[in-house]
Amino acid sequence: MSTIARVLTAFLFIVCEPGAIGRLGRALADTDGVAEVYTTTGSADFIAVVRVPDLDALATVVTQHIAGMPGIVRTDTHMAIRSYGRSDETAGFDIGVD
Amino acid sequence: MSTIARVLTAFLFIVCEPGAIGRLGRALADTDGVAEVYTTTGSADFIAVVRVPDLDALATVVTQHIAGMPGIVRTDTHMAIRSYGRSDETAGFDIGVD
Amino acid sequence: MSTIARVLTAFLFIVCEPGAIGRLGRALADTDGVAEVYTTTGSADFIAVVRVPDLDALATVVTQHIAGMPGIVRTDTHMAIRSYGRSDETAGFDIGVD
Amino acid sequence: MSTIARVLTAFLFIVCEPGAIGRLGRALADTDGVAEVYTTTGSADFIAVVRVPDLDALATVVTQHIAGMPGIVRTDTHMAIRSYGRSDETAGFDIGVD
Amino acid sequence: MSTIARVLTAFLFIVCEPGAIGRLGRALADTDGVAEVYTTTGSADFIAVVRVPDLDALATVVTQHIAGMPGIVRTDTHMAIRSYGRSDETAGFDIGVD
Amino acid sequence: MSTIARVLTAFLFIVCEPGAIGRLGRALADTDGVAEVYTTTGSADFIAVVRVPDLDALATVVTQHIAGMPGIVRTDTHMAIRSYGRSDETAGFDIGVD
Amino acid sequence: MSTIARVLTAFLFIVCEPGAIGRLGRALADTDGVAEVYTTTGSADFIAVVRVPDLDALATVVTQHIAGMPGIVRTDTHMAIRSYGRSDETAGFDIGVD
Amino acid sequence: MSTIARVLTAFLFIVCEPGAIGRLGRALADTDGVAEVYTTTGSADFIAVVRVPDLDALATVVTQHIAGMPGIVRTDTHMAIRSYGRSDETAGFDIGVD
Amino acid sequence: MSTIARVLTAFLFIVCEPGAIGRLGRALADTDGVAEVYTTTGSADFIAVVRVPDLDALATVVTQHIAGMPGIVRTDTHMAIRSYGRSDETAGFDIGVD
Amino acid sequence: MSTIARVLTAFLFIVCEPGAIGRLGRALADTDGVAEVYTTTGSADFIAVVRVPDLDALATVVTQHIAGMPGIVRTDTHMAIRSYGRSDETAGFDIGVD
Repeated sequence: MSTIARVLTAFLFIVCEPGAIGRLGRALADTDGVAEVYTTTGSADFIAVVRVPDLDALATVVTQHIAGMPGIVRTDTHMAIRSYGRSDETAGFDIGVD
Repeated sequence: MSTIARVLTAFLFIVCEPGAIGRLGRALADTDGVAEVYTTTGSADFIAVVRVPDLDALATVVTQHIAGMPGIVRTDTHMAIRSYGRSDETAGFDIGVD
Repeated sequence: MSTIARVLTAFLFIVCEPGAIGRLGRALADTDGVAEVYTTTGSADFIAVVRVPDLDALATVVTQHIAGMPGIVRTDTHMAIRSYGRSDETAGFDIGVD
Repeated sequence: MSTIARVLTAFLFIVCEPGAIGRLGRALADTDGVAEVYTTTGSADFIAVVRVPDLDALATVVTQHIAGMPGIVRTDTHMAIRSYGRSDETAGFDIGVD
Repeated sequence: MSTIARVLTAFLFIVCEPGAIGRLGRALADTDGVAEVYTTTGSADFIAVVRVPDLDALATVVTQHIAGMPGIVRTDTHMAIRSYGRSDETAGFDIGVD
Repeated sequence: MSTIARVLTAFLFIVCEPGAIGRLGRALADTDGVAEVYTTTGSADFIAVVRVPDLDALATVVTQHIAGMPGIVRTDTHMAIRSYGRSDETAGFDIGVD
Repeated sequence: MSTIARVLTAFLFIVCEPGAIGRLGRALADTDGVAEVYTTTGSADFIAVVRVPDLDALATVVTQHIAGMPGIVRTDTHMAIRSYGRSDETAGFDIGVD
Repeated sequence: MSTIARVLTAFLFIVCEPGAIGRLGRALADTDGVAEVYTTTGSADFIAVVRVPDLDALATVVTQHIAGMPGIVRTDTHMAIRSYGRSDETAGFDIGVD
Repeated sequence: MSTIARVLTAFLFIVCEPGAIGRLGRALADTDGVAEVYTTTGSADFIAVVRVPDLDALATVVTQHIAGMPGIVRTDTHMAIRSYGRSDETAGFDIGVD
Repeated sequence: MSTIARVLTAFLFIVCEPGAIGRLGRALADTDGVAEVYTTTGSADFIAVVRVPDLDALATVVTQHIAGMPGIVRTDTHMAIRSYGRSDETAGFDIGVD
């Protein structure tokens, strides 16, 4: 309920040019709003977990900061709509956008 | 800035069983939060434009109301992150989530 | 029934070069016939809602105005065929082409 | 220019259950608005050429008549937006929707 | 039965560079064997209907005339194998290759 | 030039239910017009080489004989348009349809 | 370096039957090893973040606990191989498997 | 050169019904010709490494033994054509089929 | 049974740059091991039937001779594992690798 | 149980530029951690089997050594999570990460 606790969570699947993987890992980690970044198995080169206060901040991270990095080929954004907690906690709750 | 004007926009691509198209069009239109619904050309059977006040309402529309309708096969949600206006209007603005 | 009210609706899924997203948002919004344009989650960079009086105008928007913008990689057009209204309104109605 | 000559053209890619191909060919050919229907090479079982006077008639053909036939799995509709003529004829012309 | 009436029908799905759509429409329409050409909704930029007397002519249209046009990215050919007529006409008939 | 020598060649990619592979191999080989049939590596379960005198015979093989076999899931037909010979033989020649 | 801090991170993309979304959210959240679970935009119904001490625990979560839940259609696992930290922290570090 | 040493290597990507993963792992490992079997990250449920003396044995493993197991949805076979050794060993060598 | 009769059969799906189709047809036909080559309908530009005595010869054809031709974009190899004969001939037989 | 015996297994699907296949086979085989490398049938050009002691070594092989080789287009990594043994051996066992 507090504005401090509000956060949007998005998972970014990032494909880059093969030779750019090493350089981009650190550049992604240094991007404001990127909470975690990993090289992963599978068809994406990186998965980045973005936690930002609102959609405008998400747009800034995805379309201005990350899309403009040299070597980025595609970014596919999956945004969390609802978070589910354990039964012994509170019920499925709004993840902070109102 | 006013809470009255705040709205999230999402585009839902909905695939259904072939025989259910006729019945589902009206059911989708009657769903709270669905502003427009069309049968369209291409690989989706319907495109629904959802306008809701927050992510929790979006989750309710997508995962509770629409996903539970008999005949729905898949729903792929594309959420608007940032809206762009004409140059003679205000600059790219936040679409209502903060 | 009035020719003034007639409108075709099309949803354009637009993929662009990563570095062109910032610049293209405004250019798309400034295009005649483009009613709304958003960056979105998912595999498209933009979804543009086009509302035009006839198919010829749609062809002009898609193949002449948008396809020619530098940085556009692909445009996939989904055209609305039939609109569905709420049960308490009129039945599924023709969206304005006759 | 005459309303009599106006026609929308759409190409329907139709996938059906393997055992239904024989029966569906004739049923598709008997559908109002279907001008031509072929079994074809490639990933679709049928390509049907639909010529109708307006979008409402197209919606009726696709979502009511064809989608409801037993054995239909999917129909993907590609609608003609603009027709191109030979240089020795008239220039690219509107295909009849206004 | 007459050799005059014999014709092969093929549907070509053509993808081109975005900036080449305007120029290619007329070039395709001017190609011998191309009976109709449209820009369409969906993932192809053009659908061309080719009607030729034999497979050799189809090969010439597809691999020599169209594939060589600057700006063509891919051509996917769907050839009609069998045409279906209405019940009040003759039964499913051979489309002219023997 | 002789009608005896004329032949259409088509490659059928056939996907079937996993448990039907053993039974279908022989059934496909026994089908008139099927010259060769193999289980293969890759995403198809069988590749069948069909050699028939005309398109009507191809339609009969694909849509009546094979599509109706229990356990067939999909058949994707690739038809040969032009055959290429070695430089020390005759030039690219028509494969028998006129 | 401490065994206490060691953790493997995996992102699970989970597709389920449309009617099962509501029920599965809580069931996934209650699964040992699932740190976070969200319904998301895009082609997956859920993204679950799994944090486990070793690969054997990951196998147990994915193939025994989640795959066996009624209504699950597919689970696609993307495992984090290397985590990247900010420049003002330590360099790209091993994520805890040795 | 010895017939004893000859071996074909194939990688099988196996997709199964979600509830069958636990049971199938052991069944696959017990199959003659299957040298290794793993559940893996990514879109396949299992990767099995098959090493057999000849193509006929591979066909028996894939189309008779594995395809017939209850719960198998698809098997995609990638066969090794040529093996590469380290520079300090012998040059790229034939993997045992002659 | 005779080593002379032994042959591996592989089907190569070859995609090339659009402008290279004409030139590549003859080049492929002139390649040792290529028994037949056709331009075809569908998503591949060529299907080549390769018949070679062993896997090493197949590797030479695919990775050295064909992959190196200018204009080749991708080659997807489907290798025959088992051939099926007609019921009035011998049973499913090994296709010549032991 | 011994640290010496611990090993992670990953299967790398590697796509490269057509002209680079010959050169890359040996380069991949010479890469530390690559236990086996093959050209294969199907959509990948190479399958490499990587066996390394931990995830950090896997990241080094995939993102630093292989991704940086000229001619590599994409690498898709499938990591083994659990290995299955025969019934007459020990039960499904952890593959060495703790």
